[in-house]
Amino acid sequence: MKAFLDKDFLLSSDTAKHLYHDFAADMPIIDYHCHLDPKEIYEDRQFENITQVWLGGDHYKWRLMRSAGVEERYITGDASDREKFQKWAETIGLAIGNPLHHWSHLELKNYFGYEGALNGDTAEEVWQLCNEKLKGLSARKLIVNSRVKALCTTDDPADSLEWHQKIAADASFDVKVLPSYRPDKALGIEKSDYLDYLKRLGEIENFAQLCDALLARLDFFCSLGCRVSDHGVDAVPFAPASKEEVEAIFRRRLAGQMPSALEEKQFKTALLLILGRAYARKGLVMQIHFGVIRDNAKRVFRALGPDAGIDSIGDQASIRSLAAFLNALDETDELPKTILYSLNPNDNAAIETVMGAFQNGSAVGKVQHGSAWWFNDHKQGMTEQMTSLANEGFLAGFVGMLTDSRSFLSYARHEYFRRILCELLGSWVENGEYPNDDKALKTIVQGICVKNAERYFDL
Amino acid sequence: MKAFLDKDFLLSSDTAKHLYHDFAADMPIIDYHCHLDPKEIYEDRQFENITQVWLGGDHYKWRLMRSAGVEERYITGDASDREKFQKWAETIGLAIGNPLHHWSHLELKNYFGYEGALNGDTAEEVWQLCNEKLKGLSARKLIVNSRVKALCTTDDPADSLEWHQKIAADASFDVKVLPSYRPDKALGIEKSDYLDYLKRLGEIENFAQLCDALLARLDFFCSLGCRVSDHGVDAVPFAPASKEEVEAIFRRRLAGQMPSALEEKQFKTALLLILGRAYARKGLVMQIHFGVIRDNAKRVFRALGPDAGIDSIGDQASIRSLAAFLNALDETDELPKTILYSLNPNDNAAIETVMGAFQNGSAVGKVQHGSAWWFNDHKQGMTEQMTSLANEGFLAGFVGMLTDSRSFLSYARHEYFRRILCELLGSWVENGEYPNDDKALKTIVQGICVKNAERYFDL
Amino acid sequence: MKAFLDKDFLLSSDTAKHLYHDFAADMPIIDYHCHLDPKEIYEDRQFENITQVWLGGDHYKWRLMRSAGVEERYITGDASDREKFQKWAETIGLAIGNPLHHWSHLELKNYFGYEGALNGDTAEEVWQLCNEKLKGLSARKLIVNSRVKALCTTDDPADSLEWHQKIAADASFDVKVLPSYRPDKALGIEKSDYLDYLKRLGEIENFAQLCDALLARLDFFCSLGCRVSDHGVDAVPFAPASKEEVEAIFRRRLAGQMPSALEEKQFKTALLLILGRAYARKGLVMQIHFGVIRDNAKRVFRALGPDAGIDSIGDQASIRSLAAFLNALDETDELPKTILYSLNPNDNAAIETVMGAFQNGSAVGKVQHGSAWWFNDHKQGMTEQMTSLANEGFLAGFVGMLTDSRSFLSYARHEYFRRILCELLGSWVENGEYPNDDKALKTIVQGICVKNAERYFDL
Repeated sequence: MKAFLDKDFLLSSDTAKHLYHDFAADMPIIDYHCHLDPKEIYEDRQFENITQVWLGGDHYKWRLMRSAGVEERYITGDASDREKFQKWAETIGLAIGNPLHHWSHLELKNYFGYEGALNGDTAEEVWQLCNEKLKGLSARKLIVNSRVKALCTTDDPADSLEWHQKIAADASFDVKVLPSYRPDKALGIEKSDYLDYLKRLGEIENFAQLCDALLARLDFFCSLGCRVSDHGVDAVPFAPASKEEVEAIFRRRLAGQMPSALEEKQFKTALLLILGRAYARKGLVMQIHFGVIRDNAKRVFRALGPDAGIDSIGDQASIRSLAAFLNALDETDELPKTILYSLNPNDNAAIETVMGAFQNGSAVGKVQHGSAWWFNDHKQGMTEQMTSLANEGFLAGFVGMLTDSRSFLSYARHEYFRRILCELLGSWVENGEYPNDDKALKTIVQGICVKNAERYFDL
Repeated sequence: MKAFLDKDFLLSSDTAKHLYHDFAADMPIIDYHCHLDPKEIYEDRQFENITQVWLGGDHYKWRLMRSAGVEERYITGDASDREKFQKWAETIGLAIGNPLHHWSHLELKNYFGYEGALNGDTAEEVWQLCNEKLKGLSARKLIVNSRVKALCTTDDPADSLEWHQKIAADASFDVKVLPSYRPDKALGIEKSDYLDYLKRLGEIENFAQLCDALLARLDFFCSLGCRVSDHGVDAVPFAPASKEEVEAIFRRRLAGQMPSALEEKQFKTALLLILGRAYARKGLVMQIHFGVIRDNAKRVFRALGPDAGIDSIGDQASIRSLAAFLNALDETDELPKTILYSLNPNDNAAIETVMGAFQNGSAVGKVQHGSAWWFNDHKQGMTEQMTSLANEGFLAGFVGMLTDSRSFLSYARHEYFRRILCELLGSWVENGEYPNDDKALKTIVQGICVKNAERYFDL
Repeated sequence: MKAFLDKDFLLSSDTAKHLYHDFAADMPIIDYHCHLDPKEIYEDRQFENITQVWLGGDHYKWRLMRSAGVEERYITGDASDREKFQKWAETIGLAIGNPLHHWSHLELKNYFGYEGALNGDTAEEVWQLCNEKLKGLSARKLIVNSRVKALCTTDDPADSLEWHQKIAADASFDVKVLPSYRPDKALGIEKSDYLDYLKRLGEIENFAQLCDALLARLDFFCSLGCRVSDHGVDAVPFAPASKEEVEAIFRRRLAGQMPSALEEKQFKTALLLILGRAYARKGLVMQIHFGVIRDNAKRVFRALGPDAGIDSIGDQASIRSLAAFLNALDETDELPKTILYSLNPNDNAAIETVMGAFQNGSAVGKVQHGSAWWFNDHKQGMTEQMTSLANEGFLAGFVGMLTDSRSFLSYARHEYFRRILCELLGSWVENGEYPNDDKALKTIVQGICVKNAERYFDL
């Protein structure tokens, strides 16, 4: 029996251990998609106690506690931080097989030096230890200690990016903190507060002006080093419409009339195509996240707002629509480098094969299947995503892991990913399915850990 | 090589063996969902020969025989019981990888003491042995010998429950045999015999009366210890309509006019919501089974009726609809404890994440992902369902296995499940993915085997 | 660690090795579905160099090279054959986990005696070796050396079958080369060149004449030994319409009017049912391939035409429609032996269960789940397809592998399949899940390798 979370955690063969310890473990991190707050980075935020770090805004943990029958006052309510920590410890102590169990223990080990198991009985010792260690930790220290070379936050086009500018100007901190362009709100024509949002973009009186404003903001983002955009969509839309139709839909929305389902799709298709072409011109990467149903429990949503642990995987994606959308950009050779993420793991094989149709000599892995996302960000999910990519495509060109996280402790997930990657590759070599060729294996491992991302995002 | 079906069947590691033999094997059974006939329990039915037990009504076995090219006369036709048994033995002897092969051999071992392999060559010895042993077996003995503490049958609201009452009054039998409330026929407005069914519920002249009648029957069921309801739906519907619209749809149906597809959905949504709220008030569990296409081969259906081995997995479920339905109950805090079963294994991850959105402090695992159902009730299906639940939720709170069976021999499936559970948990511990903490593991294993169900169903 | 691609490639247990080497390896091949060109067989085509063999028309390889960022001129363009081979070698050398890596190395070993690993460094030695060996190889030699007893090509009803006739008449070559009947073009009413195609079938002035012409061609195909038909459909259609409606749809199409989506479905349903009944009458097997989206990248399609590596898995199949289609034939006992292939691996379990509903005593495995197709033709895909079939049905009756290939080297995939089959069966036996019964295992292995196909296709 292997000891829990020892140095060879998740590594079962000699080859896997070799690949991880000798090639992967010490590689730097490029975290090309996260939700860190640049203000907290600039101000080098510190935390008072482990509950603030762990339970402050982590809806993954909230969900798990609710599933274990913990009352809401111990989750997002008015219980004390120590009480909340107790409930969390009791929950995670029994959460066998859940990735939060692994992540939490990796974080305890890497950032707090705790090698035991957290549960109801050990909660007090962990509470004391972590709070003591937190005095010596801060946002920047956590980033630097994790060997992060660059990170890309997620920002609205209307954002001033003042904190990015300040970080860039701060010579004492040489990690690249780059903005990413995520214009979801500008696409959200079906939202009741859409017109309020538009005001943040300036005077917008028609669709052409909306596009101009968005492209001007994109220029600004690029001037601060932006390398990647991001879109969260229900399903990748494809409903072509004429310029005039789109203008009319938008004009009616300005006048207060909500679009039909088809009109919403037409508007989003048109705007996404315009943005996609701009990304291609500028050499930016386009990320598309789809397959989510958000804010399912309206009662919780009203109490806590979005990102409250009440989202789910959806089954509404249409592969045909995805393919037609990519083709619409590719027809005129204006498809940017693109990363596709579906929250529904059933889409894996279809995504590999759709993207395979749009690859070409302009980049290694021009269209990418994004690393196992959100509810799939666990050993099985990552193994399946990488196996699927290997089965249908060129795994060696994969741009690898990102945290997608709001927490400065989440870099432990890169370690988690690298262990799983090396275990998978190692198992193939050990099983005689790939030559034991150290040169090739090093190229593949280090490519997926960081070098592919460096080249792909041109950092 | 492990011997076939030895005492460590399906248990490959020391931890798995320890968990199974020391924590799981001797636990009692709560079979919270089955299709046993309470009359046969009350009358303590005996069987003349093994063909009657095994092939009398078991459409799983019928399917397999047809797939192996056996003629129908040896399945449901006029061949002798011995001839049918021969064909079954020849079929199962070659059915490598099929769960029926495992179930049948577990049943032979546990109930008949046969440790060999059934095939065409051994059919005669097995036939003799089983028929001899059957003389000493009966419905009640099989239940008691299997350590069953409680079982929940599946009953129509119009059912008199006379056999449940008689069993309850019989002091010589202390296993709880509880009715479950399954009003599928009352919801089946699209069926041609719907009006005939309604008569069984009394004088029903409008939708309000239908609801009253159903709720009165629910009270009666509860008075006899009913703890759980059950619904079989094509897909979980969500099409809200006003009271008046629903009344109008129902009134037209009473007048002989069939509903449109939308009206059917509206009617079912309305009635399911009313029933769901009643379950919540009464603390009952609501089970929902979806994702089936029934009675595919109409020629067989005409000859043999329903449950003839001609059903299949469907892909018609809508996750968005499921989420909206649960939310409609949750909005007013009237969502009962709910167990979701989809016949389509592709729905696993989506189900975990939808239910995760509706968990709260009112119960451990308030919304449950039901144990791998029907066509998924095998090693892979169970392993996938539990792994998926662990990945996305709180496996330790899972209410575990049920037989869903018409046969008194099917308790062997609880053993099958427990072995697979212990193998899975053991593999994680052995691989260093969870601490080797015997106290926690005992809590988890015995919880899933029986204690969670005891608490969840309040038995 | 196992050496790369040694004699026990993919075989990890003693039982797996025994099953493969003693029962499977030397069995002949019946390749019941391929895309070989009968003219090349008759003329016994030779190849000048390995690039011609490997990259001439193999869109699997084209895709992988594009995914690795290789420029199109080195794939389908004007680079020299040696340059193209270099790029291919560099690509495959890093293609860890991709089935092309396995297939290519099996081909190098089996047909060229090369036991090393192909990559950028070894490209020159492999180039020299293969080109030298190719001088002694030809279409017929490759077929005979691979122990192929019969192969079924894929042919249009309008095809003259002259090459099949010549091969049959050639006493020097005793491998059966049989035509298969694939009337996709006759069904393609929505295609712009449909009327041109119809002319190839003769004078067609109404739907009845179309049917007559197709059935006459079917007779002709059967006279040359045709045993199997094939249909490639988007999704299996089921939209019943009256004879008059179908005639009207067809008449309008003859007059130049394109069908609506529903009319297209009605037409295809009607014609497929007529053909299905004819197959049943003649004892032919009906193959149906569905779940594809073809020609996604229109820019590439315009440059290279179909089969250019730009197809993908689709999610448009409807299980309900599939079940209804099969039932429409079964209702009157006119369902032929049928093999179902979906390109979407998510359909596996649903396919098993739908087909389970239509099995009967007329054949072992009357309805078959086709071997893992195209993008699923790899270790995981085959293992999943066979496990799924075993879980839900009668694996022992499976008709097994086919190449579906345009290449004379692809028989190596039968070896690949057989190794994976034996590994899977062996793992069950080693794990005590099936008795170590050599007689039964030999029956199962040799059945799936070739004997089931021999019986099923009546060859």
